[in-house]
Amino acid sequence: MADSDDKLPKYRRIADALKDAVNSGQYAAGDRLPGENDLMETYGVARMTARQALGVLQSEGIAEARKGAGVFVRDFRPLRRRGIQRLAEAQWGSGRSIWAADIDNRELEVDQVDVSVAVAPERIADTLGLEPGDSVCVRQRRFVLDGKPVLLSTSYLPAALVAGTRIMQEDTGPGGTYARLAEIDAKPAHFREELRSRMPTADETAALQLAAGTPVILICRTAFAQDHRPVEVNEMTLDAASYVLEYDFDA
Amino acid sequence: MADSDDKLPKYRRIADALKDAVNSGQYAAGDRLPGENDLMETYGVARMTARQALGVLQSEGIAEARKGAGVFVRDFRPLRRRGIQRLAEAQWGSGRSIWAADIDNRELEVDQVDVSVAVAPERIADTLGLEPGDSVCVRQRRFVLDGKPVLLSTSYLPAALVAGTRIMQEDTGPGGTYARLAEIDAKPAHFREELRSRMPTADETAALQLAAGTPVILICRTAFAQDHRPVEVNEMTLDAASYVLEYDFDA
Repeated sequence: MADSDDKLPKYRRIADALKDAVNSGQYAAGDRLPGENDLMETYGVARMTARQALGVLQSEGIAEARKGAGVFVRDFRPLRRRGIQRLAEAQWGSGRSIWAADIDNRELEVDQVDVSVAVAPERIADTLGLEPGDSVCVRQRRFVLDGKPVLLSTSYLPAALVAGTRIMQEDTGPGGTYARLAEIDAKPAHFREELRSRMPTADETAALQLAAGTPVILICRTAFAQDHRPVEVNEMTLDAASYVLEYDFDA
Repeated sequence: MADSDDKLPKYRRIADALKDAVNSGQYAAGDRLPGENDLMETYGVARMTARQALGVLQSEGIAEARKGAGVFVRDFRPLRRRGIQRLAEAQWGSGRSIWAADIDNRELEVDQVDVSVAVAPERIADTLGLEPGDSVCVRQRRFVLDGKPVLLSTSYLPAALVAGTRIMQEDTGPGGTYARLAEIDAKPAHFREELRSRMPTADETAALQLAAGTPVILICRTAFAQDHRPVEVNEMTLDAASYVLEYDFDA
């Protein structure tokens, strides 16, 4: 389905050559790519053409510009988020993963927490089965990895359900929100995760310190208690360059 | 976490006002947004500022420019892809979905198929447990919805496993590849899906006819037989603006 090479504009051919060099390992993550002057000399092209070629790699998220230092191959060393942890990984571990991930000893930390009570937004009221005007407990958190923000999470729980529990406090205690829900007979028994991806808003770019050409993944997770009551909606915004999401399930 | 309004540059404030108008329903999907001239008059700004404001909505995938006609609110009317269909939806259907989706009577069609045999790429050989140089059957398909391409799929199966079966043909017959695998004692019993998102390559943009500011979602699905043998790897590339992915699972 690719265009044949000779129809491509020059900058695209140079960009393709650079991508091939990255894919073959000639340039590894963190390496500096040839600069505009190098490309002008190697390919006999104008500065604008060289700049466009490097721009392609940046807009595709393969490389990133660092001010005054050049354009560097981006490090994709993602967190692996397992959606369904109850399924024993060992049981199905015979096939290796396509996207090798190194998450051992890498811990997410919460660097911002805000807990409040507010009228439920309409979509949240709908999902939680609340009446218009009903209140929710809103827990907003930002998660960082090695100092870099990677995840924004906003959790909504019916205020009438969680009033007086530690869920209303910044520190929910051992086991977190789900352990507290269990104590009030609302332990999550089933989850629905819905995923989308889009380009970030300016606020999301700032909050997640996103490089150019980086989408966000949106996960909306609804937790249901054993009696099928929805007890929590969690809207998450992930730096797409920092995550591989994994779901394991039986046929 | 948002900047306070008065610190924002003018084009950002105009863009935010337009986004609010979209979110509130003042402009619905398919509606034309105010043009540069309208914004110049309404906000008393220069053409470049008006253009930048409209550019924000386009880069965030909220709106798209149509040549000579203006900038229009994009229609996000996604396909819902259920990753785990064995779980009865009715059982957990009490909470409504955040992203309402209309997939009734919408059928994906395959408009391009290509079947070939090739040496397995290294990552595929690793995942399928093949030796370097081993061959795979490669099934490439493009899926369209209402004439718009939404999904590219490349499926790899060990050539030694599927030789002589209808999996090697364009039309795999009733029930498709998985039904044929069942007939040779290699029925998929377990799946692993790994998801990422990034900006598309130029080839992907062309093959999926993507609008500017649209990421792709990559799904790598590995199918395992009952004896834990990996029997298929399917690399999918999805138009992120066309999909909501859903995974339902028990705690």
